[in-house]
Amino acid sequence: MRVVHTSDWHLGLESWSQTRSINRLPETQKALNTLVEYVKKENIDLVLIAGDVLHNRVSPRIEALDTLARILQQLSNEAPTILLLGNHDWRGLKMLRELNLNNLFVVNKAEILEIGDFKVFAMPHLDTQRALDFGADPVSEAEKVVKEILANFSKEATSSKKNILLSHVMVEGSIESERERNLQLHIKKSFFSSNFDYVALGHIHNQSLVTTQPVTWYCGSPICLDFGEEHDKKGALVVDFSSEEPKVTQIELPRKALMTLTLENYRESTLDAVAKKIATCDGYVRIVGKTRPSNEIRKYLMNNFENIVKVEFEHETESVDTKATLFQSDVLKLYSDYINHNYTENAESMLRIFKRFLEEVEFSETPET
Amino acid sequence: MRVVHTSDWHLGLESWSQTRSINRLPETQKALNTLVEYVKKENIDLVLIAGDVLHNRVSPRIEALDTLARILQQLSNEAPTILLLGNHDWRGLKMLRELNLNNLFVVNKAEILEIGDFKVFAMPHLDTQRALDFGADPVSEAEKVVKEILANFSKEATSSKKNILLSHVMVEGSIESERERNLQLHIKKSFFSSNFDYVALGHIHNQSLVTTQPVTWYCGSPICLDFGEEHDKKGALVVDFSSEEPKVTQIELPRKALMTLTLENYRESTLDAVAKKIATCDGYVRIVGKTRPSNEIRKYLMNNFENIVKVEFEHETESVDTKATLFQSDVLKLYSDYINHNYTENAESMLRIFKRFLEEVEFSETPET
Repeated sequence: MRVVHTSDWHLGLESWSQTRSINRLPETQKALNTLVEYVKKENIDLVLIAGDVLHNRVSPRIEALDTLARILQQLSNEAPTILLLGNHDWRGLKMLRELNLNNLFVVNKAEILEIGDFKVFAMPHLDTQRALDFGADPVSEAEKVVKEILANFSKEATSSKKNILLSHVMVEGSIESERERNLQLHIKKSFFSSNFDYVALGHIHNQSLVTTQPVTWYCGSPICLDFGEEHDKKGALVVDFSSEEPKVTQIELPRKALMTLTLENYRESTLDAVAKKIATCDGYVRIVGKTRPSNEIRKYLMNNFENIVKVEFEHETESVDTKATLFQSDVLKLYSDYINHNYTENAESMLRIFKRFLEEVEFSETPET
Repeated sequence: MRVVHTSDWHLGLESWSQTRSINRLPETQKALNTLVEYVKKENIDLVLIAGDVLHNRVSPRIEALDTLARILQQLSNEAPTILLLGNHDWRGLKMLRELNLNNLFVVNKAEILEIGDFKVFAMPHLDTQRALDFGADPVSEAEKVVKEILANFSKEATSSKKNILLSHVMVEGSIESERERNLQLHIKKSFFSSNFDYVALGHIHNQSLVTTQPVTWYCGSPICLDFGEEHDKKGALVVDFSSEEPKVTQIELPRKALMTLTLENYRESTLDAVAKKIATCDGYVRIVGKTRPSNEIRKYLMNNFENIVKVEFEHETESVDTKATLFQSDVLKLYSDYINHNYTENAESMLRIFKRFLEEVEFSETPET
């Protein structure tokens, strides 16, 4: 009995649109085609997709939906396939549920599925809008809800089956990639009952073992979505349940490298050395200049090397980072101060509405990760 | 051998949002549930859906997609079902094609399907963007393309099967409802070859016989979408191929009435008479005042009668109509004059881009029809 565990495809991602726009769909398609071949060849019994198959929660790209439908069709043609919705996933995917597809199960709310020898306990990403409705302390309220769902799941585990928890969550202590968001619930490892034989997680893009009691993995995204992920482990996982303890192995998928190169000065020999390194890279390169910013050098590099997608200078980068931090937390703080001062009576509900808008904006644009 | 012919569901339509906003989904769902029951009970051999199942070509509502998927699942569970895309249909529906569904065929480009004893020649709405690319005289160029497709179809007709042409087009001479658009190709009846046993059309919301040589019908929309359609025939059609000539019969579907009442003056007795008529209407009422505009009367009527969705005064209506006409043609004319004067060199390509935007805008908003 072998299960494939994959997640975080982010179909429809357009990277580095402000410097050199790259449509990442072909790269992800190639990785997923390899995954489909693997599932075909290896006679897999179950495919688990732990969320974030799409990148744009609002108005997903039509080509992304086409690819998603094709891959889901191919996978479910080989093995029962469960698609769990993540925070990036467009809510319209519920439509697939209504089609009552033979071997494809779309999960948009906590539920238990019995498929062959498996009992799958599926908990999708808790909708943030719902979490915000929880009241005074949404994060701790949301934590309570998650804890209760998982406790109820645990009670339903049965020794005659392999019990798998499938979820799209951030686990406390996970090392997030550079740009993953902060304003979310970090759930405790202790919530995962040892009644589960395996816990299949999505959300973190770095393939990583979370805990061994029960055996809990993030399978990782198939490709490197941004430079914060260039050293991540990527691919998918196969979980073998033939012995007492599940045996977890990496499935290698093709992907392009992301590579950050530093530029110490503008001497010709340094530029030559960088050019040589770039030539060895089949993927995308970010140049970080450790010297004074120069738009001429930026232009020279972008024009002469097609796989350079970004040229940053440390001095500039700092100011950009400050802006990013400001957006992520301080905007909320500033707005909160403002309405608390001016509209005391409705402050709480206005703040709630503003948070929703802020999230809508974050999800509807195509950020770089 | 019996075929059901339906079209123009416009799922997701929100009517009269500027006066009293009504979500039309429940009404359409009820009609379509009845259609599903009919197909179940009557042992139908084929279901043809001639386009415009959705109302919003851009960002369709999630509940509309859910309903669409459910109805398609239920229909295709009973009989092979062909969904042809119309001008309102969101292009993401191509996704359903990729799922390789058993009994559901989604058509987004001209193609021929052989299903049981039927040969179906399917020509979806010619994408207007493509038509605009045809060059100097897009409408006559588009007409040429349509003529050629239909001529090629006709050659492939085979006497051993029932040959059905399925299309979403405006036929010359069709009486359009009040608000249906004007800027489109009107194709000639003579394009329909007598090699076809039946021609199943969508686009016009009024159920109507177009020609008897070959037998050609618009099946009509299931519900009245706006007041311009209050006297239309609505429902679906069943086509019986057991005799030499196809026999076409109406399928009645439940729907709400739309009713325009005129108000000659503001005397109490007149208002009482109108109130009595409103009480007999299970649907939605538009009041047209034949007297001086009065916001007080408008408020009185809207506040006291829940099924009044619009109060218009003839004098006001005129000015609104002028604006509508201006938008539909004069905006283009004005812009054309402007760019011809200021940007002679790129005028043509700019005008083409502007036309696309204009269409995008028309399709992305939720107009009243």
